[in-house]
Amino acid sequence: MVEEKDIEIVILGSVAIDSIKTPLGEVKKVMGGSATYTSISSSYFDVSCGIISAVGGDFPSGFKNIFDKHRIDLSGLSVYQESKTLFWSGKYPKDMNKRETLELDISILSKFNPNIPEKYNKAKILMLGNISPKTQLDLINNFGDNKPNFIVLDTIDHWIKKDNFNLKKVIKQCDMMVINEDEARLLSKEYSLIKAASKILKLGAKYLVIKKGENGSLLFDKTNIFFCPSFPLETVKDPTGAGDSFAGGMIGYLAKTNNYSFENIKRSIVYASVMGSFCVEEFGIEKISDISKDSIEKRRDDLSGLTTI
Amino acid sequence: MVEEKDIEIVILGSVAIDSIKTPLGEVKKVMGGSATYTSISSSYFDVSCGIISAVGGDFPSGFKNIFDKHRIDLSGLSVYQESKTLFWSGKYPKDMNKRETLELDISILSKFNPNIPEKYNKAKILMLGNISPKTQLDLINNFGDNKPNFIVLDTIDHWIKKDNFNLKKVIKQCDMMVINEDEARLLSKEYSLIKAASKILKLGAKYLVIKKGENGSLLFDKTNIFFCPSFPLETVKDPTGAGDSFAGGMIGYLAKTNNYSFENIKRSIVYASVMGSFCVEEFGIEKISDISKDSIEKRRDDLSGLTTI
Repeated sequence: MVEEKDIEIVILGSVAIDSIKTPLGEVKKVMGGSATYTSISSSYFDVSCGIISAVGGDFPSGFKNIFDKHRIDLSGLSVYQESKTLFWSGKYPKDMNKRETLELDISILSKFNPNIPEKYNKAKILMLGNISPKTQLDLINNFGDNKPNFIVLDTIDHWIKKDNFNLKKVIKQCDMMVINEDEARLLSKEYSLIKAASKILKLGAKYLVIKKGENGSLLFDKTNIFFCPSFPLETVKDPTGAGDSFAGGMIGYLAKTNNYSFENIKRSIVYASVMGSFCVEEFGIEKISDISKDSIEKRRDDLSGLTTI
Repeated sequence: MVEEKDIEIVILGSVAIDSIKTPLGEVKKVMGGSATYTSISSSYFDVSCGIISAVGGDFPSGFKNIFDKHRIDLSGLSVYQESKTLFWSGKYPKDMNKRETLELDISILSKFNPNIPEKYNKAKILMLGNISPKTQLDLINNFGDNKPNFIVLDTIDHWIKKDNFNLKKVIKQCDMMVINEDEARLLSKEYSLIKAASKILKLGAKYLVIKKGENGSLLFDKTNIFFCPSFPLETVKDPTGAGDSFAGGMIGYLAKTNNYSFENIKRSIVYASVMGSFCVEEFGIEKISDISKDSIEKRRDDLSGLTTI
């Protein structure tokens, strides 16, 4: 259990049970969810982190032990005894760039009423993981005067199509939006990522990160662009959680350094890319939950070296 | 016309007439071919360049003027009066990553018997553009004792499938191979580009460049990797010739600096990427044949800055 100190990073997102099949293997009923990956990834940056999420009565105690091991505060985790924890099962084709959902039970989200524990009120960073824009908006509003200094937003194609109205309200309240390239194109109705970024930044967020999977990521503000490659891996076993681990590395580094300039966000993106690369090396959270700080620093150096002339 | 001085770069490849359709427009019967793009691109690096290719009696005099403007030596260009110049027509879908060939007349290649003009015998670099491995091999052998110091090989999926035997012989004689990611996977039978590179380097070339289109390029030797992003563009009008312009920038810089270390090849890849990015901004050779040296240096700085932390 974590001590009763103020939480620096608050992560809204899912805690789930996943069954995953990729060309390199299969795992069943493992720990998953956006809040899980993001919080575990951020835990390597010596910052206190709490999650706001919901699970059912079937939530395995083994999962709780993993959060405890990473000193992740669970006082914002609502347990609905009569409900089932969010379940996702999916499979990936050979190139692992797309995925197919085989089964999805998100019934618990209909009951989910996010609460903000007292000790989350001094958070520096709020990460709004993928969930309905309405829930994201409610949470921001519930912080009231205690709104964190830096709000990061993730979303998916579903919400861009189904609740564009509220999504745009959330974007306006955010400091940074993090989406993948297809989502950026869908949201902006522009194919060129440069044009897409320019349009999305006009919606209100100061920074935009566009993730391109194995092809790296782009950071934009109104006048600057930064590109960070993905770490070249011999083997990608399972892409699940890569984007959430990316976000975790980014906000972990930002909370630790407490500097939200473009220059420092560039550095955070390199750590983000490093954490995403660890994640995909094993199934589920297997690798991301068991890395040494030395190996993170080593890979950060290797990744920077990759583009150094 | 160029003066009678020794040629530093010799480019084997096609000189063609292209008709191109992309989502942003269409051009008919414009100057094209791998040797055309590569030589024009290399001409910005103040090196003397000659091409070894063949055209028919229909070869437009306007095309010759463009070669002359770029001081490209044509003494290795065979004119077969009774034949037709290589003709390619194709179209690109919205994402421009694949292309569809609508019409292709390569009958001239059956007559093509590459000759090496005397003044090509002191060349530093030989660029073997996409053509049959047998022709590439013959040309290397025809150089005899005058074999250029640095031989670069390009090929396509067709030859990997249809003449793997001779292709592997060419690779063994080359210093560098430049292919795109799909070709690297096809040649190595490995999906991971890291594994693919490791296998391909074992075939004999010292360096390997894997091009990933808008997603940048990777340079490998047995122990090092370098990644260069593509320059982010607002608009890509026509990808035709991007890879050949890339090669032209690379060999132009290498011939100018005459240094074939991994460190210098890294620098050449940045120029390669710059030249590829100019190429795709307009249809055919329109842009690549009309750039200022200042704009090349400016874009090189911008591209380097894109990954600088």
